Amino acid sequence: MATYREASPGQAAFLQSLLDAGLLLDTGAPGLLGQGAVFDDVREAFTAAVTRASGADPIESMRFPPLTSTFEIEKNGYLASFPHLAGTVYSFEGDDAQALELEARAARHADWSEFQSKTDAVLLPAACYPVYPQIARRGPLPSDGVIVDTGSAWVFRNEPSGDPARMRSFHMREFVRIGDPADVATFRDVWLERTVDLFTRLGLVAESEVASDPFFGRVGRMLAANQREQELKFELVALIGGPEPTAIASFNYHQDHFTQIYEIGLEGGGIAHTGCVAFGIERVTLALFRAHGLDPRAWPAEVRAELWS
Amino acid sequence: MATYREASPGQAAFLQSLLDAGLLLDTGAPGLLGQGAVFDDVREAFTAAVTRASGADPIESMRFPPLTSTFEIEKNGYLASFPHLAGTVYSFEGDDAQALELEARAARHADWSEFQSKTDAVLLPAACYPVYPQIARRGPLPSDGVIVDTGSAWVFRNEPSGDPARMRSFHMREFVRIGDPADVATFRDVWLERTVDLFTRLGLVAESEVASDPFFGRVGRMLAANQREQELKFELVALIGGPEPTAIASFNYHQDHFTQIYEIGLEGGGIAHTGCVAFGIERVTLALFRAHGLDPRAWPAEVRAELWS
Repeated sequence: MATYREASPGQAAFLQSLLDAGLLLDTGAPGLLGQGAVFDDVREAFTAAVTRASGADPIESMRFPPLTSTFEIEKNGYLASFPHLAGTVYSFEGDDAQALELEARAARHADWSEFQSKTDAVLLPAACYPVYPQIARRGPLPSDGVIVDTGSAWVFRNEPSGDPARMRSFHMREFVRIGDPADVATFRDVWLERTVDLFTRLGLVAESEVASDPFFGRVGRMLAANQREQELKFELVALIGGPEPTAIASFNYHQDHFTQIYEIGLEGGGIAHTGCVAFGIERVTLALFRAHGLDPRAWPAEVRAELWS
Repeated sequence: MATYREASPGQAAFLQSLLDAGLLLDTGAPGLLGQGAVFDDVREAFTAAVTRASGADPIESMRFPPLTSTFEIEKNGYLASFPHLAGTVYSFEGDDAQALELEARAARHADWSEFQSKTDAVLLPAACYPVYPQIARRGPLPSDGVIVDTGSAWVFRNEPSGDPARMRSFHMREFVRIGDPADVATFRDVWLERTVDLFTRLGLVAESEVASDPFFGRVGRMLAANQREQELKFELVALIGGPEPTAIASFNYHQDHFTQIYEIGLEGGGIAHTGCVAFGIERVTLALFRAHGLDPRAWPAEVRAELWS
């Protein structure tokens, strides 16, 4: 079990107020939170606002389940960089006697892990990962590349915490750009501007910061330093439970990391590059409740108009 | 790994036609399928049609992530009845050296399971399970009980198969009735009629059948026989990949199974009963493509009107 990260007093108080209001529902496991009707309504409204913000871009939609093939995260480098965040799926493969013993232990909440073995499935770590092999199958990309919308996908990060902003299972929505380096750079700039505008209309004060991914271990610290130095990742951060702001959207340039692995080339020759914009949908929803209060009927008219227009 | 169930020739051909049309997307793991824009659009439209069919019922919405607390499936009997279908989440808890060894094995797709240990989370097996502990917390129910809509939740069944109708990860939407036995019986009758009507308007020929759950092992065969004898479960079945029809919705009476476990009583005294209607959202979507062809623009006008009204 990963180490449980205690909530700060502000985070704990904010979570309790959300639970008391029925906005979130406690399932007994940290970071696995149900959502009441009002929270769900705001979350869906924000998701729709993102769709409107995507404007006239020629976008292809793909939706993926909360699980993906283990083979892919072995191949795409996720396990090398984030082994501590991955969730792998195990299952039972035994006979009647073993099932009885499993159940006897489960009934007293004792350890039944000896009856479980690894399957070919893992929890989806990021919404964009299943997109790359799909695009790779098509062969070389047209010269203007492609933009894929993953919709709101359920992703998983194994970081149990009392901070409501650090859910283990949450919706991430990504737009993925695959094309030549200039197209990817333009895409990132356009989306950074769009997102700042959207958050401003929603009354969220979101600061832009150079950022890095939570790479594992000693090698990871070097990767993170390199990522910052090259300014490959930006985040928009907002106040949620405090005391420090939390990332609610990120803008990522992967260079040729995924396109080398999946051999995604351009029609005119040469390797493609990729980038993505990613929204932490629950975090944005939480930031809205933090900024405007627990009752959306009392939110500023312009915020309501942006969400429910 | 659970035994892979080969597709029938009809199932394999239907899946291939869905993949060729970009309606479904192959992730490389059986039963974990992505969804293209057109499939997703039909799936969402059917989900909205179910909402309309729920009429003026006083319904409370709760949404849950695709994971839930292991403690709950130890407590509610799922592991006793369906150990073979459960998916448990494991994670990495090691140091730098172990992470390097894990990655070295992962890179050659070798076994790295020794570096994984069991967490407190499992994949959600059914949309209604997290509802019961939420309701239990409130104390005795009002005399007219409660109806909860789970929305389209991602659930998991570990039964890898080449049949597109047998996904391992799929959306299940449930309406859960908790109240006195008469209320639960009425709820089941009303929803059976509503659902037959809805499927008729959608041009689906769905037969009603007495059914049983896929209980595990020798004891499970007795449980299934008992369930059929008492007519506790009905299914509506439709043709998908063939040759046999597949359940696309079920109507379940749990008697006091969950209310005894969670101690859910009625205000006037006495234990509550529960029942639910469950829609296999992807199965209904597949049945629509099977019945009306792969291009929804060419579907009968009355079916389109029902879905996109």
